[in-house]
Amino acid sequence: MIIDCHGHYTTAPKALEDWRNRQIAGIKDASVMPKVSELQISDDELRESIEANQLKLMRERGSDLTIFSPRASFMAHHIGDFNVSSTWAAICNELCYRVSQLFPDSFVPAAMLPQSPGVDPKTCIPELEKCVKEYGNVAINLNPDPSGGHWTSPPLTNRAWYPIYEKMVEYDIPAMIHVSTSCNACFHTTGAHYLNADTTAFMQCLEGDLFKDFPTLKFLIPHGGGAAPYHWGRFRGLADMMKKPKLDDHLMNNIYFDTCVYHQPGIDLLTTVIPIKNILFASEMIGAVRGIDPYTGHYFDDTKRYIEGAKHLSAESRHAIFEGNTRRVFSRLDAQLKAKGK
Amino acid sequence: MIIDCHGHYTTAPKALEDWRNRQIAGIKDASVMPKVSELQISDDELRESIEANQLKLMRERGSDLTIFSPRASFMAHHIGDFNVSSTWAAICNELCYRVSQLFPDSFVPAAMLPQSPGVDPKTCIPELEKCVKEYGNVAINLNPDPSGGHWTSPPLTNRAWYPIYEKMVEYDIPAMIHVSTSCNACFHTTGAHYLNADTTAFMQCLEGDLFKDFPTLKFLIPHGGGAAPYHWGRFRGLADMMKKPKLDDHLMNNIYFDTCVYHQPGIDLLTTVIPIKNILFASEMIGAVRGIDPYTGHYFDDTKRYIEGAKHLSAESRHAIFEGNTRRVFSRLDAQLKAKGK
Repeated sequence: MIIDCHGHYTTAPKALEDWRNRQIAGIKDASVMPKVSELQISDDELRESIEANQLKLMRERGSDLTIFSPRASFMAHHIGDFNVSSTWAAICNELCYRVSQLFPDSFVPAAMLPQSPGVDPKTCIPELEKCVKEYGNVAINLNPDPSGGHWTSPPLTNRAWYPIYEKMVEYDIPAMIHVSTSCNACFHTTGAHYLNADTTAFMQCLEGDLFKDFPTLKFLIPHGGGAAPYHWGRFRGLADMMKKPKLDDHLMNNIYFDTCVYHQPGIDLLTTVIPIKNILFASEMIGAVRGIDPYTGHYFDDTKRYIEGAKHLSAESRHAIFEGNTRRVFSRLDAQLKAKGK
Repeated sequence: MIIDCHGHYTTAPKALEDWRNRQIAGIKDASVMPKVSELQISDDELRESIEANQLKLMRERGSDLTIFSPRASFMAHHIGDFNVSSTWAAICNELCYRVSQLFPDSFVPAAMLPQSPGVDPKTCIPELEKCVKEYGNVAINLNPDPSGGHWTSPPLTNRAWYPIYEKMVEYDIPAMIHVSTSCNACFHTTGAHYLNADTTAFMQCLEGDLFKDFPTLKFLIPHGGGAAPYHWGRFRGLADMMKKPKLDDHLMNNIYFDTCVYHQPGIDLLTTVIPIKNILFASEMIGAVRGIDPYTGHYFDDTKRYIEGAKHLSAESRHAIFEGNTRRVFSRLDAQLKAKGK
């Protein structure tokens, strides 16, 4: 079984974006704020948006199941206040839940949170609980920078985030640390802000001692861990200078990297440097990079090929990356699969 | 000949830091602002600070010449106003110049600029001209984020930066794109801010068309290019989606990466993915990571060993990385060396 642990609903029907634009207009002019009930998307529209896109590519490429969360760049937590984020998160999470109900063998939902800059993270807990208990979500996406590129929140090791972590531990769900769109002109969203956030989150964890307080907390750092694996020697050296334990002990019982690295040499490095138990298959398909690599003739984001092409990996390692590690980290997914006899 | 294109004066006598602290105190209380003449560092003190540190390690490791600029984390352009930065840059540049005069075979200077957040970059030109004309500087360090982690300046492709680029082209000097200390708690200086800035600068260039306006402009992106080589497929794919030319044509006649990547697999990836002509030897010694790698028994930042250990590199490629490329990119250095018959 091949599980893609990082997929977003980037192909939602246009009505969603239209409703969001009306909501954004409503921030300035309450008279045009739309009601939630004005957003109408039928099951057929959902089916079509998935069958023609993610599901088609999953079948072509041979992956079985995708952990599916709302479109990352559309979370845009910097827009409006908590109420705006709360309404928007509820809508997006419900859509991913409905997709998971329409395609129960192919999609399992992960939740976005109604974060808002300067608002206490614990305000996200009711949405988190609903998504886990009522919608069967197996993970959350946690945005370390709800400001969208201004980085005004405290580091992830700060106690302000602890209420979220307490709930994650209680439900044994991992968080993918994933920023949203950048509203800072310096940072291109998918080419800089995403990768910078990955590196930043990793280094925040290295600097702190978060996993002493939460030994079972699990963070998935997407996009192959940003710059971390490429600079693994730098990070090992910094840990040494800061008198931290070795990275294997300090971080690697709690931090995982996905395989959203879109060329063979990158995947070769990732799977050489990082312990196999910490690597989870993902493609972020359909996501940041949608074209075909002229050097290979295949989609850049068809990362399954790179795992298969990494010659040093044993069959056992590939199985761990494709399925075993993900079932271990996303324990609620594992329980759901076992209940289905899988 | 082995040229290290990225060294900072991180070991300057303590009097420098003491003077800087008095200057910082003087920002709030003008009555305690020190005079420049109150900073007294003798040639013997300079010699000692270099001989016991950088020069000792250069001899041990077998590199011949270092392009030497003021300590990056101490540039701290966010402190004070233009006058504060201007005085500080002049002091730091003069010290690197004096080091180059004391050790003319081992050090050649590169200048920091008196940048200040929100101040027109063209105010840096007098210091730049002095450093090139009077001090024999062969390059500048350009900080894309003088705010120190708040990223309030426009992207490097913005016309606000063009006066600097015009001077760089006039003198045929490259700029190393190097931020300074982070005053944003989210970003660890050497573990996140530096690497993020490298990735950000690369992506800014990818998004824009700067090198159409300045076909001979040269940017050195340090720390192995941040996350760029590891995610080279992502960047090739993004260029394709943005209808930009191939990276080789769009950026790689103008952008260079150094080899400050502190483990063998990282250097192997860098030298596999990036054209050899775009890779310049550097160690950033004595810099961010000062310890010994327990896995190898050698200093993390002894990057010469990794170039020598990259089995796929030919003797010709190693020569290009160690000397040839650097003499081509730093043409004023090449002219200085040729004038000495080297």
